[in-house]
This record gives sequence, C-alpha cells and structure tokens, in this order.
Amino acid sequence: MELNLDLNRDIPVLDWTPHLAPRTEGMKSSAIRELLKLTQQPDIISFAGGLPAPEFFPLREVEEACRYIIRKDGAKALQYSATEGYGPLKEYLATTMHKYGVPAVPDNVLLTNGSQQALDLIGKLFIDSGDYVLTGRPTYLGAIQAWNAYGARYHTVNLDDDGMVVDEMEHAYEKVLADSGKPPKFIYVLPNFHTPAGTTMPLERREQLAEIATKLNLPVVEDDPYGQLRYEGEDIPPICTFIPERTIYLGTFSKIMAPGLRLGWIVCPEVLMKRFVQAKQGCDLHTGTFVQYIANDICQRGLIKPHVRRLRQVYKERRDTMLDALAEFWPEGCSWTHPQGGLFLWARVPEPVDTTEFLKIALAEKVAYVPGVNFYPNQDGGYNAMRLNFSYSPPDIIVEGIRRLGIALKKALGY
Amino acid sequence: MELNLDLNRDIPVLDWTPHLAPRTEGMKSSAIRELLKLTQQPDIISFAGGLPAPEFFPLREVEEACRYIIRKDGAKALQYSATEGYGPLKEYLATTMHKYGVPAVPDNVLLTNGSQQALDLIGKLFIDSGDYVLTGRPTYLGAIQAWNAYGARYHTVNLDDDGMVVDEMEHAYEKVLADSGKPPKFIYVLPNFHTPAGTTMPLERREQLAEIATKLNLPVVEDDPYGQLRYEGEDIPPICTFIPERTIYLGTFSKIMAPGLRLGWIVCPEVLMKRFVQAKQGCDLHTGTFVQYIANDICQRGLIKPHVRRLRQVYKERRDTMLDALAEFWPEGCSWTHPQGGLFLWARVPEPVDTTEFLKIALAEKVAYVPGVNFYPNQDGGYNAMRLNFSYSPPDIIVEGIRRLGIALKKALGY
Repeated sequence: MELNLDLNRDIPVLDWTPHLAPRTEGMKSSAIRELLKLTQQPDIISFAGGLPAPEFFPLREVEEACRYIIRKDGAKALQYSATEGYGPLKEYLATTMHKYGVPAVPDNVLLTNGSQQALDLIGKLFIDSGDYVLTGRPTYLGAIQAWNAYGARYHTVNLDDDGMVVDEMEHAYEKVLADSGKPPKFIYVLPNFHTPAGTTMPLERREQLAEIATKLNLPVVEDDPYGQLRYEGEDIPPICTFIPERTIYLGTFSKIMAPGLRLGWIVCPEVLMKRFVQAKQGCDLHTGTFVQYIANDICQRGLIKPHVRRLRQVYKERRDTMLDALAEFWPEGCSWTHPQGGLFLWARVPEPVDTTEFLKIALAEKVAYVPGVNFYPNQDGGYNAMRLNFSYSPPDIIVEGIRRLGIALKKALGY
Repeated sequence: MELNLDLNRDIPVLDWTPHLAPRTEGMKSSAIRELLKLTQQPDIISFAGGLPAPEFFPLREVEEACRYIIRKDGAKALQYSATEGYGPLKEYLATTMHKYGVPAVPDNVLLTNGSQQALDLIGKLFIDSGDYVLTGRPTYLGAIQAWNAYGARYHTVNLDDDGMVVDEMEHAYEKVLADSGKPPKFIYVLPNFHTPAGTTMPLERREQLAEIATKLNLPVVEDDPYGQLRYEGEDIPPICTFIPERTIYLGTFSKIMAPGLRLGWIVCPEVLMKRFVQAKQGCDLHTGTFVQYIANDICQRGLIKPHVRRLRQVYKERRDTMLDALAEFWPEGCSWTHPQGGLFLWARVPEPVDTTEFLKIALAEKVAYVPGVNFYPNQDGGYNAMRLNFSYSPPDIIVEGIRRLGIALKKALGY
C-alpha cells in the first residue's frame, strides 16, 4: 500500500457541539477529579481525594492471587465471562450480607466497575431528563455526576448529626410532585460515615426511613462504601435489611482492598436484577474477569477480614490525629464532625471564609481539600464548609497539613 | 444491637416497572449473551460467541507482568488513577496508530473497559431518544444493544463484498432528515473483517466514505476490534487516517491479549476527548489501573507483536479449516464469505431454512451459532444467514461442528 500521510499535516478542527445530545450540557468534569490532578504534585498535602492509604494495600495477597489464578485457572480468568459476575464471588458477597440480616442469594448480586458504575447503571435505568432524585444536602458528588449525565434534578433535605432528616422527606415528596407532576425516582442515602458529612444514621432513623419509603412507594439507593471501616460503636444494620424489596444496596472493594481493581457490587431484588444485567451488557459486557478472580481468591482465603481489621486500626489513628490537630491548630469559630468510621470529616469555618476562594490560599500553602459547595447538588450551601480526608496521609503529614490550614485560616480571619 | 431478622422471612415483591425510565423498554438482553450461557455446557460446539482461543492466552506474560508490577509499582497500580488512562499505555497506543498514518498523540487516547464501553460512551454523548444512527445491514449487535439504551433508531444501508455500500449513504441521510427532521448522529462502520459479515472495505471505498462523511458533515465511528488479525493481503489504513477530525476510532486488547482484562481504547480529536472524559468520570471514574499496568508491561516489553503473529497463524489455520469443512460438508445452495481476517464468517443457507428456527435443531445436535436476524437492527433481514466464529474451537472441533450442521441442513432441506 502506497500512502504518504504526513503525521505533521494540518488537521481541521470540527465543532462537535451541534452533534452532541443536548443532555450532555449537564455533564461537567468533577471538581474532585480535576483536583486529584493538581494534588498529584508530590509536595501537596492532599485531604481532597478519597484515596485509601497505598502503603497498606494488600500487595503480597494480590501477587499470590495473581500467580495462583493464572496457574490454576488462567484460561478462564482471562476469558469473557457472565455479565452478572463471577459465581463464587457473588456467593461470598451474598453470604457476607447475611450477617446483617439481608436475605441475599447470589442472584441478588451484580459485580460492577466500582460503585461509580452502580450509580451510572441506576441513572440509566431510572432517570429521564428532568426527573428528580431525593437526596441530602450535602451528598456524594460522584452520584451527582453520574446522574447529571441523564438530566437528573435534585430535591434535597437537610442533614443533622444523625444524617438525612427523614422528617423532611414527605414534604419534599410533595414539593417534587407539585413541581414536576411526578414523584422523585428514589431516595439516595449514605447511612454509614456519610461522604462528605461524616455522619452516621442511627438504627431508629433507618427504620423511620424504611417506613416513609414504603409509605411513599419510593425505591431507596443505599450507598455503603465504608460500612466495614468503623472505628467506634457497634455496626448498625443497613436500610436494605428492613426493606429489601425496594432497596438497591451498593458495596465496594475500593476502600477495603484496592480501588485500582475497580470492583464494586449491587445487591437488589431479583426482579430488578434482570434490568441491571441488561443495562450492564450494553455498558461493558461484564466486569473484568481477572480482577474478580483476584478479589475472590483473597476473600476465600480468609485474608480480607484481617486486612480490614488492620485498616480500621490505621484509619482510626489517622482520624484521631486529625481531630486532635484540628482542636490544636484551628481558630475559634470552626467546627467539625466526629465520624464513627469512613474516610472523611466535614469541617465548617466562620462565615467570612468562602472555602472555594480559600482553596487558592490553601494550595499556595501546599494543602488541598474539597470545598463544601461541590457536595450541594443545587449549589445552595456548603460555602463555609470543606471535606477533609484522613485516610490517605500518614499521621505526621496530617498534623502538618491541618497546622498549615489553621495558620492560613487565622490569617484570613484577621486573628 | 438486638435485631432478629429471619433470613427466611417472606419479602414482598415490588413492581419496579413504573419506577423505571420509559427508554428502558428498548433494552433487551443480548441474544449473544444469552447464547453464551447455553454454550457454557461443555458438550456444545460453539460457533456463537466471539471468544478468542483460551489455549493461546499469554498466561506467562500476564503472570510475569503481575509480579513485576506489584513489586515495582504496586502502590500506584492498585490506586485510583486518571480518567484518561495510564500515561505510558496511552503513549504506546498513540505511537502504534502512527504506523497507519494517524497523527495521534497521547491526549487523543482514552482507555475504556473494552470496546463495549466506548460504544456506550458514544451513546451517552451523542444519542437522544429517537435519534438515528446510520449503519450497515447487518451490523455489530453489541453496538445496537449499547445504543438502544439511549433510545436510538437505525437507518441501514446494504453491505456488499466490500462492506457498507457508501453510494447509498446520501440517500439514507435524506431519508433520515425527512423522517426525523434531523441528520443521523453518525455513521457506524466496521471496515476490517466486519462482524458479522466478514467483509473488508478496500482503500478506495474508505476514501469515498471519508468524502461523503465530510460532505454531509457527519461524524464517523470506526470500530476496529480485529484490525491486527489479518491472515492474507495487506493492511489498509483506517478511515481515521483520512478524516481524523471527524472520526472516533475504537480499538481493543480483547482479541490480541485477553478479553477478561476488559481493556479497549478510543482515539478521537482532543476537543471531543474532553467530553468523553467527563462522560467516563460519571460512568466509573476510570478504567482499572492494575489491568492497564499489565497491558502496558506486556506491550512495552515487546511481547505483544510476537503474540499477535502467533495468533494470526492459529486463526488463519482455523479459518481455512472452517472454509474447507463448509465446502466439504454443506449442501448446495449455501454460501459464505471468505474473511481476510478477524474471527467470523457469514454463511447463507437456502431460503426455506430460517436460521432462528434451525438453531433449535442445531442445538439438539450440540452446535451453536448466532442467527443472522440479530445483526439487523430493524430485524429486516438475515433470516437465512448465520454468523460463525472460527477463533474459539480447535480445528478438529471446527470440522466436527460444521459436519453436524451440514447433516442437519441437508435433513432440513430434504436432501
């Protein structure tokens, strides 16, 4: 073939905008993702991302799993596989749900590319342009990003120290109905160690939420990425336990094993699972076979439980370090949540400080966080708040970062 | 916590239909995926799936890569990473595109969960309910499945021995415009070793397609999963080469490395790439870090080229075996394509035989294929055709499967 195409030739630039679907206007690049790029500069102390501590990744366990899988089952582990997920791993996950009282069987479980894909699949199945989601203010911004792509709107209820204020839900439902002529598509809730707020919903409020969801005939999306990372108090059963027939429960290996595997799961009723499987087929055929085999091997060898125990120690120390540093270095008028688990706390600063503006000062001091407003789907709050991650940085770095932020805050407040 | 939840309690069944988005009615489970389940029965000879030969997976290479990556770079390989993909792998892919004359740089490349996710992202960015896609009849059913989820409609042009009949495109454009008041969103084309048809588009027709796309101001989605698996003749430059400013090119590691890694890529103009990255963030944050490191290690060590050379030998032999067996065992009146590469050929049987009906007979004889109608997005053809895969089964099994189909065909035709 004779073809002399010049690699340096001028290529015209096409305007793609008129070709795109109108709903893509709602898609924006995530503030967190853009920040993550910034914070890859090695000299930045980052409280911004939701990254686990890489020095505690189960490297030996993964290496052993890879060798074992390739030698024993390589031809299957590298081949196409069922959309639903790898059988033994589904069985393991169904069984672990049992200890919470969730009557799950393997057919209730779907493996996904991290929880983020579960959020996307929910958007794909439920949300048409203009539909409302009922969620808290603040709420997880990855969910907002997933659902914006389908044209979602948001009606929010407040959070108090016990998470979403369930008493506001019936009123919110009526408002949505009046505004759009349709009920909201579902309630989105993060009951354990809420991101970004760090709150945990007590048992009674979970039962209350289950009751109101049933009364209003609304599905519940229960996002539980950190449930196993509890540092004090006792486990509380998921909402899924009370209303399995109307709950879509989301779990993930990202925080308890490794996020780079991209492995999460959905637990939901079998009648709905068929629809999720259809949607996922169109999305990517199935979740990676090899990474499912790796996670399964580590779980089945009983290595995940001691690993999670270890993580709980490490992250508890980091949480306590951050709480102590905040008390020591931050000026009067600031406040913060005391999370019982998870990766984040939510800090408030006195009103003159806008945390989006203040981020520039913080970055000049080589510290990063996520400004609170990013977690308000309608941008109607969080101006004086920030989300702080305590899982990623070692304790001495946490102290230094909080100290720097404290000095900068005092300066900004004129102390 | 005191909670006695009976795992065997009766759980009410919710009717989820009224909660779902109306567009989900277009989603159906893929015939191929459902068939794959059937064909997992070990005694079935399956020409149905698009599975690579598992006995030639690069097991040693993957095992070495895993060990090396975990030891050298484990903390990064298991962590969250950039949505765009792993830098060194993007660079490798951009460079390999150069040899076709595509002026790609790493910023033109996005890593995806197999090509299927690329198809889904295209649907997400381009297709609103009722929008038309211009494609061939037949065409790849994974694309139909991806775009049905966004409510796509299809206008098709015929295929001849040289692939999509480009001469029909202008008329098709006018029809779509008249019918929907809008141009089609893009042209979807599989120029190399078309699935299911097995045809390859010659250079002249690719240039002609590039011209008509430019004239009509239409984007082109160029799906090239098998481009490197050519068994005769010379490589032909991708359409992307002629109109990089309006082409979205899709590649994949599924057929040249292993599908269980779920790794594909998009090459497109930088102005459009930003939108793909936003869409992918909402879908799953990023493609698995670990599997990208594995693929990169195998590519950078120079192991992929000899591996692909090997695959070309193996699959050429299997293609030739299938062609010979068809000539030997199938009755008069049947015909089939002679693919220059890829994994499939397209066989036609005499009109009284409906290949959907005949599949039951074939399965009773323990042989599977995909009936042709599944590749017609408007179900307006393919009734007497079938797609036969020749990559998965070893030669002796191919002969036996084609022999059994031949006997059953003769019986069905009353010979």
